[in-house]
Amino acid sequence: MRVKNLAELEKLLAQKRNAPARQEVVTSKPVAASQANGQAVLPQMRIIGLDVALRCTGWGIIDTRSNPFRQTAVDSGVIKNTDKQPVSDCLRHLAAATRELVALYKPNVAVLEGGFYCQNVHTAISLGAARGAVIATLAEAGIPVYEYAPRKVKQAICGFGNASKQQVALLVSQFLHIQVDKISNDSTDALAMALTHAQMMSIANGLNPPQPI
Amino acid sequence: MRVKNLAELEKLLAQKRNAPARQEVVTSKPVAASQANGQAVLPQMRIIGLDVALRCTGWGIIDTRSNPFRQTAVDSGVIKNTDKQPVSDCLRHLAAATRELVALYKPNVAVLEGGFYCQNVHTAISLGAARGAVIATLAEAGIPVYEYAPRKVKQAICGFGNASKQQVALLVSQFLHIQVDKISNDSTDALAMALTHAQMMSIANGLNPPQPI
Repeated sequence: MRVKNLAELEKLLAQKRNAPARQEVVTSKPVAASQANGQAVLPQMRIIGLDVALRCTGWGIIDTRSNPFRQTAVDSGVIKNTDKQPVSDCLRHLAAATRELVALYKPNVAVLEGGFYCQNVHTAISLGAARGAVIATLAEAGIPVYEYAPRKVKQAICGFGNASKQQVALLVSQFLHIQVDKISNDSTDALAMALTHAQMMSIANGLNPPQPI
Repeated sequence: MRVKNLAELEKLLAQKRNAPARQEVVTSKPVAASQANGQAVLPQMRIIGLDVALRCTGWGIIDTRSNPFRQTAVDSGVIKNTDKQPVSDCLRHLAAATRELVALYKPNVAVLEGGFYCQNVHTAISLGAARGAVIATLAEAGIPVYEYAPRKVKQAICGFGNASKQQVALLVSQFLHIQVDKISNDSTDALAMALTHAQMMSIANGLNPPQPI
């Protein structure tokens, strides 16, 4: 902006000082009423994202509201099994921990990674077993399970499908206003999955939404 | 046998008629006492075999006693899911049905197929998921799970690793003295797995026995 002289500059500054403060469209305070800024506030949904593996499963839970579109992080962590634990014990622990998370946080939907590529059939069966234990537990609790390919998650969060785990973590921290330094990459991946589902449901807005598996 | 004349033949027949009836080493009657034919009767073990798949899982339960070595069929059947059922519902049903079988028949150990070959990674993940749901349920019930490769099962039952499903079914019927015409091949495969485990434990006899997964 260019001003002709000092008098004009002082006039503009005075105008700016008297103008009302700019309203944030999405505030960080919780919306108590069913109306915010004249818009109907849609009911909240709790999403659990799970980055499933036999030895280390990351999980992340978010609350999402589609109108205004806003997400808040609830909690995240990892379900760990040691390398020495037998496969059956890992699966038992995975199912029990998933059941505990469901009882504690009462999520409405669950999101898992799907459509990935495994070079090795043995790895695919092992990973499939971990997924089976988790999906069966979620289905027994009546929670619909959705799947997104890793590429789709990266595209939804970072804008491109080849993003690294660090880039995904950085953008998850910016979306959810959380520090991700102390959170493992498995947990940020799980939070990214939950955010992707929130975004997909918001984009679909009732028209051809993603279907549970 | 050759006889010189009619008198000798009549003499031999009379001897046979007067001889005591031949004792069966293994009788079909249950052994009530802890001693049979001077041998210690080892405690009975109930084995459930499971031929796991997402849409049709065969199961078969046998009781086995290692000394004298004898197996009896308890029950068999299939856990079916329709092609239209979503994957999560199939896994939920599979876990629930396994839990029901465990509660009803109280098996001591479970045997699954392992070390098989899948051409397709997608099939491997789907099969792995079914196995995961079943193994997690069995492990939660505290039942040790054993795995045998299909080739090993065929070798144990038929004597050669390339036996067909029909050959396995025929020998299962002879081992267990049951009619297999009305039993599906998935169930006879499951019974064959249970028989294989009984045989493996009997051969090992405390020395380097198969280990649960």
